[in-house]
Amino acid sequence: MAIIAALALLVAGYLVREVLAASPGTARMVEVGQAVQEGAAAYLRRQFKTLAGFVVVIPFVLLLLPADDTGAKVGRSVFFVVGALFSALVGFVGMSLATRANTRTAAAAMSQGEKAAVRIAFRTGGVVGMFTVGLGLLGAAVVVLVFRDTAPQVLEGFGFGAALLAMFMRVGGGIFTKAADVGADLVGKVEQGIPEDDPRNAATIADNVGDNVGDCAGMAADLFESYAVTLVAALILGVSAFGERGLVFPLLIPAVGVVTAVIGIFAVSPRAGDRSGMAAINRGFFLSAVVSAIGVVIVSVLYLPTDFAGFPGLEASTQSGNPRLIAISAVLIGIVLAAAIQVLTGYFTETTRRPVRDVAQASLTGPATNILAGIGVGLESAVYSALLIGAAVFGAYLLGSGSVTIALFAVALAGTGLLTTVGVIVSMDTFGPVSDNAQGIAEMSGEMDEAGGAILTSLDAVGNTTKAITKGIAIATAVLAATALFGSFTDTVTNALGDAGARPETGRGTVGGLNIAYPDALVGLVIGAAVVFLFSGLAINAVGRAAGRVVMEVRNQFRTRPGIMTGSEKPDYGAVVDICTRDSLRELITPGTLAVLAPIAVGFGLGYPPLGAFLGGAIAGGVLMAVFLANSGGAWDNAKKLVEDGNYGGKGSEVHAATVIGDTVGDPFKDTAGPSINPLLKVMNLVSLLIAPTVVKYSVGTDRNTPLRVGVAVAAVAVIVAVIVVSKRRSSMIDGSPPVTQPPAPSPQKINV
Amino acid sequence: MAIIAALALLVAGYLVREVLAASPGTARMVEVGQAVQEGAAAYLRRQFKTLAGFVVVIPFVLLLLPADDTGAKVGRSVFFVVGALFSALVGFVGMSLATRANTRTAAAAMSQGEKAAVRIAFRTGGVVGMFTVGLGLLGAAVVVLVFRDTAPQVLEGFGFGAALLAMFMRVGGGIFTKAADVGADLVGKVEQGIPEDDPRNAATIADNVGDNVGDCAGMAADLFESYAVTLVAALILGVSAFGERGLVFPLLIPAVGVVTAVIGIFAVSPRAGDRSGMAAINRGFFLSAVVSAIGVVIVSVLYLPTDFAGFPGLEASTQSGNPRLIAISAVLIGIVLAAAIQVLTGYFTETTRRPVRDVAQASLTGPATNILAGIGVGLESAVYSALLIGAAVFGAYLLGSGSVTIALFAVALAGTGLLTTVGVIVSMDTFGPVSDNAQGIAEMSGEMDEAGGAILTSLDAVGNTTKAITKGIAIATAVLAATALFGSFTDTVTNALGDAGARPETGRGTVGGLNIAYPDALVGLVIGAAVVFLFSGLAINAVGRAAGRVVMEVRNQFRTRPGIMTGSEKPDYGAVVDICTRDSLRELITPGTLAVLAPIAVGFGLGYPPLGAFLGGAIAGGVLMAVFLANSGGAWDNAKKLVEDGNYGGKGSEVHAATVIGDTVGDPFKDTAGPSINPLLKVMNLVSLLIAPTVVKYSVGTDRNTPLRVGVAVAAVAVIVAVIVVSKRRSSMIDGSPPVTQPPAPSPQKINV
Repeated sequence: MAIIAALALLVAGYLVREVLAASPGTARMVEVGQAVQEGAAAYLRRQFKTLAGFVVVIPFVLLLLPADDTGAKVGRSVFFVVGALFSALVGFVGMSLATRANTRTAAAAMSQGEKAAVRIAFRTGGVVGMFTVGLGLLGAAVVVLVFRDTAPQVLEGFGFGAALLAMFMRVGGGIFTKAADVGADLVGKVEQGIPEDDPRNAATIADNVGDNVGDCAGMAADLFESYAVTLVAALILGVSAFGERGLVFPLLIPAVGVVTAVIGIFAVSPRAGDRSGMAAINRGFFLSAVVSAIGVVIVSVLYLPTDFAGFPGLEASTQSGNPRLIAISAVLIGIVLAAAIQVLTGYFTETTRRPVRDVAQASLTGPATNILAGIGVGLESAVYSALLIGAAVFGAYLLGSGSVTIALFAVALAGTGLLTTVGVIVSMDTFGPVSDNAQGIAEMSGEMDEAGGAILTSLDAVGNTTKAITKGIAIATAVLAATALFGSFTDTVTNALGDAGARPETGRGTVGGLNIAYPDALVGLVIGAAVVFLFSGLAINAVGRAAGRVVMEVRNQFRTRPGIMTGSEKPDYGAVVDICTRDSLRELITPGTLAVLAPIAVGFGLGYPPLGAFLGGAIAGGVLMAVFLANSGGAWDNAKKLVEDGNYGGKGSEVHAATVIGDTVGDPFKDTAGPSINPLLKVMNLVSLLIAPTVVKYSVGTDRNTPLRVGVAVAAVAVIVAVIVVSKRRSSMIDGSPPVTQPPAPSPQKINV
Repeated sequence: MAIIAALALLVAGYLVREVLAASPGTARMVEVGQAVQEGAAAYLRRQFKTLAGFVVVIPFVLLLLPADDTGAKVGRSVFFVVGALFSALVGFVGMSLATRANTRTAAAAMSQGEKAAVRIAFRTGGVVGMFTVGLGLLGAAVVVLVFRDTAPQVLEGFGFGAALLAMFMRVGGGIFTKAADVGADLVGKVEQGIPEDDPRNAATIADNVGDNVGDCAGMAADLFESYAVTLVAALILGVSAFGERGLVFPLLIPAVGVVTAVIGIFAVSPRAGDRSGMAAINRGFFLSAVVSAIGVVIVSVLYLPTDFAGFPGLEASTQSGNPRLIAISAVLIGIVLAAAIQVLTGYFTETTRRPVRDVAQASLTGPATNILAGIGVGLESAVYSALLIGAAVFGAYLLGSGSVTIALFAVALAGTGLLTTVGVIVSMDTFGPVSDNAQGIAEMSGEMDEAGGAILTSLDAVGNTTKAITKGIAIATAVLAATALFGSFTDTVTNALGDAGARPETGRGTVGGLNIAYPDALVGLVIGAAVVFLFSGLAINAVGRAAGRVVMEVRNQFRTRPGIMTGSEKPDYGAVVDICTRDSLRELITPGTLAVLAPIAVGFGLGYPPLGAFLGGAIAGGVLMAVFLANSGGAWDNAKKLVEDGNYGGKGSEVHAATVIGDTVGDPFKDTAGPSINPLLKVMNLVSLLIAPTVVKYSVGTDRNTPLRVGVAVAAVAVIVAVIVVSKRRSSMIDGSPPVTQPPAPSPQKINV
């Protein structure tokens, strides 16, 4: 396993060399690229410094929570740090390479044509993909090898570290990128009437930095986290379902994935006759899916017998059925799900399909109908995605034929199956911001020629679709991982009840008491879904506040330095980058605190059955909300592109203005709130898993300690309320300050994201 | 009980006479009023004719489902019809009185001032309130008296009839009113530049008709249904919790409510020194809440002993605790909840408070930020409402001190407590459309004077707030009733499992197997929340489609009859009313079918545990979605009003245009999709309750019949898919037909709803 992981990292190294070997473009492009690079690096440095506090404090808090032995306790804390560091590393690598690849992609588009540009952009993504699978596999394999019996508990720490850091990077990066984007457009394009990416706009560099810290670093960390947590869930459940083999088999699947991802990534090389860059990418994706499927069958046949007799580490006759068939079917379900989501998301976000055309059509009667149509499309597509994911879970459940242990393991295996394609998926996703940035840099440096411009625009459109697909797949992994972790949660609760000498309350069943027929559990369920709503609302509001501050700074620069407009003075790009950095780091605290403390408040305050139901509510609300936000955002974005391509009146028409408004609404939907829900679900699940034994201990049996239990809950609620109130206070400070003597801004125009 | 019910109806009669005795206004006002009246009556007639099919067919379908004996079976079908008829009757009465009260309110505002106008508008609502409580109490009391032992099953039929009809009226009316409203504004104000309610606009009468069929008839039926279903839930649970007394006590609470509502309604009589009409209404509400609380304490002390010993019809020692204290506390929780929601909703929708000001402030940077701010406010307020309702449920749960039977009964009692204020609530709600209509009629008839106009505008603003409050309370009743019905569902499942000779699967607990740690149940949970999303999306899309058709008709009239603009020709109001009628009845079929068939598909397709979890998911998703839609809509509406009052640039400014766009987005949110979720939850709960025994019978034991079971599920899914596909087909027919030679419409302006 470690060898496969090393292979992945080696391939990554090869790809890095290939990307860096390409020409970085003209001196002017390099200059602009440098500014973006510095801004992004500065942001990440500051973010890591901020988050270092968590990474230092939380391991000690984790030591307070019970574990099987001291080794497991220490290992959990250590691997929490490892998970966090890996998550940060993947994000950092993705971002720093992306900030170098952008000028190179731009240069390639101008001097060598589309083929070379697609290749550079996609291989940049390949590096991130290889890092993701390599580090994920490495971390999990080491834990299993070193800790063996107590591996599940250590893995919880590893997953929690990865998920927590990824969530902060997703939220912070998402706020940064959209605050800069919206702010730049509101002042530059609307108030001053200068084009997008005009070097006179002080916010343009920040906008490009944002693409890198949000879409590259945040997304890479997020996918690494998905990968790690899914593996963690599979390994934890593997022991009870498949005995010792269950600790190895889940690692074999991603190992297959590494090999096939390498094939997939090298397969992406546009051929003559392809309609667009998308064709090559699709080829890579489906090729690696098919190769994965074949590889999984081979590995399963080699490693798993056809019945449960004599499984090492498993009591005889506890399981029935054909383990080989179960494993193969479960993994295939995951692979098919990935392909199905790819197709479904494509349908809802491609400009040639019905839904996007409907949204554009609705814009004929103005922005209100555009918004309504986009919301309608988002709500509907969320349902189909949820049903698809639900079908996969139900299919995996049926494989268990009555045994919940096998069923949950099958769900987790479906998750690993989904992730065999992750190498290609990450590559696809990174492709988006790299080509977006390439376009921006070419334009800012003033070196854009027509042919190169057309290539970069078409790459940008492809990037939009690949980004939407990644989000769909990421949320699917979240649901599968969370569903599987449910199993661990209930196991943990049942064991803890046994330790406390108590039995689950009569009639509640033995499985964690997660029976929502009980009003307390139902309340937990509602709170779980409510946290998703609150988290989304907070993230959307945070973008609005931070964008407001960017608007004020840029306005101020234009006012105090009249030379900027005439071109005789350079704007202070760094000031805007600083504002975005400071604000996004400050704003991520509120949703971040909510995610960590909400399960603590519910668990300690209401008890363990509401805590379990809370997780269920969060999953149900989360999957729908995440897809709704991502797809309505994607549909608005592409409806705008459709109009810009000359339909319904084209650029500059009233219809175009309407689609621009829709797109601005969609920005924080699809790039801030939506994608953050994925790590949110994992963080809440893992926090619940970690606190479950303590919650049970303080609730029942001889160790019952109601004052302490309620005290913890009250403290958690108090902190949540305090950070929300403080963030509102900040917003009221801003409300007072905008220049009220100015006439109200004209209706906002925003062309590109 | 019957006497109290009769008293309520008598009071209603007295109020009708009082309202009708007022002057109906000038001849021109009467003429306009007559047109509205006829349109509304025509719509309701046609709607009832369409729905008659359901009312005839469903009783026979119900006969196929098992019941304790033939009497119960027949009774259930008969009372299904009674419930549906009562629901229709309340809606009809509310609407026909409202269409008469509107001209009278307008006349009173002009000739006698605000006091008289508030009085007429509020007392009109009082009639509906009295009908609601009177008929609800009458129906439930008769069932209990006649059927006694099998009363719960018959009550299911009664509740189902009421809920189903209310849902159709809510959805149909909601589509009608918003299609007419949006359509009228898009053509009239935007394209032709004529003021709102201008008689030259062919859609104005339809707009006013819409207020009556949507906000009056739909809402009245909806509140009647809330009332009936909550009573049903309390009575069903009452038997197991409190024995025979449990069949009487839940009827005593609303009886108290009738008396106090009468007091509350007569207390609403503006005094000198009141700041606005709202002060008088608040006085009425809080007075009746306090009187209710006192009344409940008195009734409980008189009727309930302080321990469970010797409860008739209850096995000794099955329950512990002080029944009197439990009952009083539970009902008080409900009353306090009603008051808390009143305050919370007021905070989020009043123009003087922070959230609405924030939304208006955000409009300074255009429509996109206005929309984002409104969505943020909606999401946040939904969470607080959900937490409030959750706290009430949890409080009621604690009253059970371990006994789930008592806990669920306490939840149901909290629901009846909430509903003691329903008389005043309904009056408050009807107040909204009546004053809105009064304003419209005064303007259309051209008889508006300045003082009268100011009074009617201020009444309209008060109406906005009261409407939002009613929605909050309605959704709270839905959650309490649905939670309580959960208890009946699990009881039913457990009994059915016993009948089938089967036991719940091991480890799933005895209570309906509703353990969401099982992947199949989790899938049900996700589907439940998904149905709420899909239903909302479908309703929003339906409004868009129907509004599109209105636009085409009005455009066409302006084009083919040039005399309309010059005033020499009268537009064909009836044609637009016809379009709205036909379209809203056609459009309600898709969401209606979904509501009825989704639980059938889940239950028969996946089994009874997913069906139970499905209901949980629907509750969690539904409460959040309903409040989100209602409150963001309310916040946008009032942000617009705030700007119209002269803030941030006032009427006609760019800021105003931005708030108008937000308000148009909010229209189908708050008046179509949002309020329909309340009856949706009830319909799905009751359908699940009715099919539960059959689902269990076909799933387990000797009567297992997999082909039939799966066949039913497949048929249900096929019908759902078919109606959705057909409705999409309709939308594509429209897409093709709008006049493409016309220039795209300029950015839409819409001033008032």
